[in-house]
Amino acid sequence: MDKIPILRMGPFLLVTIQVDLYDRLALSLETDLINMVHKTGSRGVLIDISAVSIVDSFMGRILGNIASMTRVLDAETVVVGMQPAVAITLIELGLSLNGVHTALNVERGMALLQTKLGPDADDEMADDDADDTE
Amino acid sequence: MDKIPILRMGPFLLVTIQVDLYDRLALSLETDLINMVHKTGSRGVLIDISAVSIVDSFMGRILGNIASMTRVLDAETVVVGMQPAVAITLIELGLSLNGVHTALNVERGMALLQTKLGPDADDEMADDDADDTE
Repeated sequence: MDKIPILRMGPFLLVTIQVDLYDRLALSLETDLINMVHKTGSRGVLIDISAVSIVDSFMGRILGNIASMTRVLDAETVVVGMQPAVAITLIELGLSLNGVHTALNVERGMALLQTKLGPDADDEMADDDADDTE
Repeated sequence: MDKIPILRMGPFLLVTIQVDLYDRLALSLETDLINMVHKTGSRGVLIDISAVSIVDSFMGRILGNIASMTRVLDAETVVVGMQPAVAITLIELGLSLNGVHTALNVERGMALLQTKLGPDADDEMADDDADDTE
């Protein structure tokens, strides 16, 4: 189990981080995620860190990297589920997660992505009722 | 990080298992999941095991337990993302995951839950267009 699974949820990808991101795991997550965005044409990536109790500068950089990488493939990244203590530590460390969107939980993250991407993302999610509205 | 996060996705709960389920962790997952079903009134639980490369009789029993427990709270459990090798091992071990629904991936698992639960679940998911159809 040395891979972090990436779940496809409609037009979005969902990653839940539950283990400490050491070097190799973080790099393979980056690669897997970018390949998956490329393969599926996903427009949004949700990264759930609700199980993460410590975010250090390494993890901050990884999240920033993922956000930048997905952006060049035309996908937005939202980090969700951050624990209050993690938010406090981040700011005290002077890490502000530049370029990374955040949301309270997965549902709000999805709503944020849908707002950012406009009605297109919705259409892909609800296959049936999006034939030819125009 | 000794808790497995439970994500709320509309009317369903999603759990991704990425680490080996030892005794205490499995018990706390059971408890957390049942409490969460009770608190949120969720009608379905999706358990993603795509990162799991070995399923033994212990894990089989945990999955069976969770399915039975959620059923008495009127929620269905679907195990998704099982790797082919795991399916082979399960059957060779004589474990058939009785009472546990399975689906190929999260999306199909959600579709299965929606079929099982009827239109109610759909309505809860798409808040807007379910005001008073009747």
